[in-house]
Amino acid sequence: MIKDKSFLIVGLGLLGGSIAMGLKKWNHKVYAIDIDPKAIEYALENGIIDRGSTEADAQLIGMADVIVSGLYPSLIVDWISCNQQNFKSGALVTDVTGVKGAVVDRIQSILRPDCEFIGVHPMAGKEVSGVQYADPAIFLPANLIITPTEKNTQQAVDFIYEMGKELRFNNICQLSVAEHDKMIGYLSQLTHVIAVSLMNANDSRELVQYTGDSFRDLTRIAKINEHLWTELFLLNKDNLVQQIDAFVAEISDFRDALEKEDVEKMKQKFITSTERRKYFDR
Amino acid sequence: MIKDKSFLIVGLGLLGGSIAMGLKKWNHKVYAIDIDPKAIEYALENGIIDRGSTEADAQLIGMADVIVSGLYPSLIVDWISCNQQNFKSGALVTDVTGVKGAVVDRIQSILRPDCEFIGVHPMAGKEVSGVQYADPAIFLPANLIITPTEKNTQQAVDFIYEMGKELRFNNICQLSVAEHDKMIGYLSQLTHVIAVSLMNANDSRELVQYTGDSFRDLTRIAKINEHLWTELFLLNKDNLVQQIDAFVAEISDFRDALEKEDVEKMKQKFITSTERRKYFDR
Repeated sequence: MIKDKSFLIVGLGLLGGSIAMGLKKWNHKVYAIDIDPKAIEYALENGIIDRGSTEADAQLIGMADVIVSGLYPSLIVDWISCNQQNFKSGALVTDVTGVKGAVVDRIQSILRPDCEFIGVHPMAGKEVSGVQYADPAIFLPANLIITPTEKNTQQAVDFIYEMGKELRFNNICQLSVAEHDKMIGYLSQLTHVIAVSLMNANDSRELVQYTGDSFRDLTRIAKINEHLWTELFLLNKDNLVQQIDAFVAEISDFRDALEKEDVEKMKQKFITSTERRKYFDR
Repeated sequence: MIKDKSFLIVGLGLLGGSIAMGLKKWNHKVYAIDIDPKAIEYALENGIIDRGSTEADAQLIGMADVIVSGLYPSLIVDWISCNQQNFKSGALVTDVTGVKGAVVDRIQSILRPDCEFIGVHPMAGKEVSGVQYADPAIFLPANLIITPTEKNTQQAVDFIYEMGKELRFNNICQLSVAEHDKMIGYLSQLTHVIAVSLMNANDSRELVQYTGDSFRDLTRIAKINEHLWTELFLLNKDNLVQQIDAFVAEISDFRDALEKEDVEKMKQKFITSTERRKYFDR
């Protein structure tokens, strides 16, 4: 089904570039649109794409069977509504956005009826951005989550599975939009809030020489793109606030046990966390 | 100065065993006392020690130029006061305890005047315990922190530097007891409290298949020895409660910015954490 399909990547950053590289290995035609001429130039020079433009080139847009948005969440709805008159009839449209509630419904409600949008979240990334860091190897250990709604066809879901296999994702699975955003609020967004807050709780530059692996592991993701993550957090605000509150309640409970020297309660918390963490061993 | 010295390890667990193995490479005589016959048997069979006993053997204790306590903090003061009558005159006594305020002063105030105690913290470990997991390679990336007081001689400090070099620690440095415990409250103990609380905030077993590296990194140390860490936390209670409070204040400030959609404040926090984290890159 995916054989001979052509792809247009809109927003050629780290993720868009990595997808382009992965698709090129299967001899798909891959096009790209990005406002940064350096990104397009780099991708053309390095054989990452077949054709590119820094503008919303109607002809290029009309050539694609599949359109993959690598845009920031704040831009994606506008871009689709401004350019959908040029989409090929029957085009499948998808994205890489890290929260789904704020984009999937809005896009599906405005999209031309002869096209289909299906939400996708590749749980992959790096602490750097830009097509020059693109590398399809980031998908090898990663999950691809598909968030279909009642507006999606089985054909579209099957197509994303095929695409995910071509890109060599470790695991491809489906969640509802609501389940996805709740899960991501805990596993990804809360962990980033914690890392940032741990880093900001002290000006600890003078402690570098004493620092072991634990602190480095917990703060690795405190290096963070402030524009993207502010958007993602705001788009999932209710879930994330709830997760922060649950975490703060738990750590406050631990603090009180420590202050009261409630040895049994402290030990029980260590036993619980040890048991639970075992499920996450690889 | 360290050449030809003999060592007695009291409490032959992961750290004690790793020290024994590291010292044997330099042809020191290494003895050990542990209440667990399996630990002593294993260490003798594998050439980790030259002699061992499951009891506080007066003769064995008297043979050692240097005594290294690998005991739990709650046991170390009692063990020294019960057995110091058998120490060789001039013996240097040291330890591996992760908090210093609760042990250094007490030991120095009860120790025989012809012996010397100097506090040492090897910032190394594994998520498993026992001499069968001992491996001196755990010291290669690690810090050795010496916490001398006005009761210590320069000779003892120099000796620990030599010992740390033989054990191939990455970095050997000195801190006061108070500085050490404050630093460890933030860099090590707070990070463990966070990992445990993140793991305990949700029963997340069903989320395993969606879990990426961030969550795994932040919860790796949630697998924790409940007996040892309860002791360590209680012995550094004031510092740790203060660190938890500072962290909770910071994460609550972030939560409020998110709830109010204070974009500028959120971005500023991400910029600060990104800048600070750069100092910790290796």
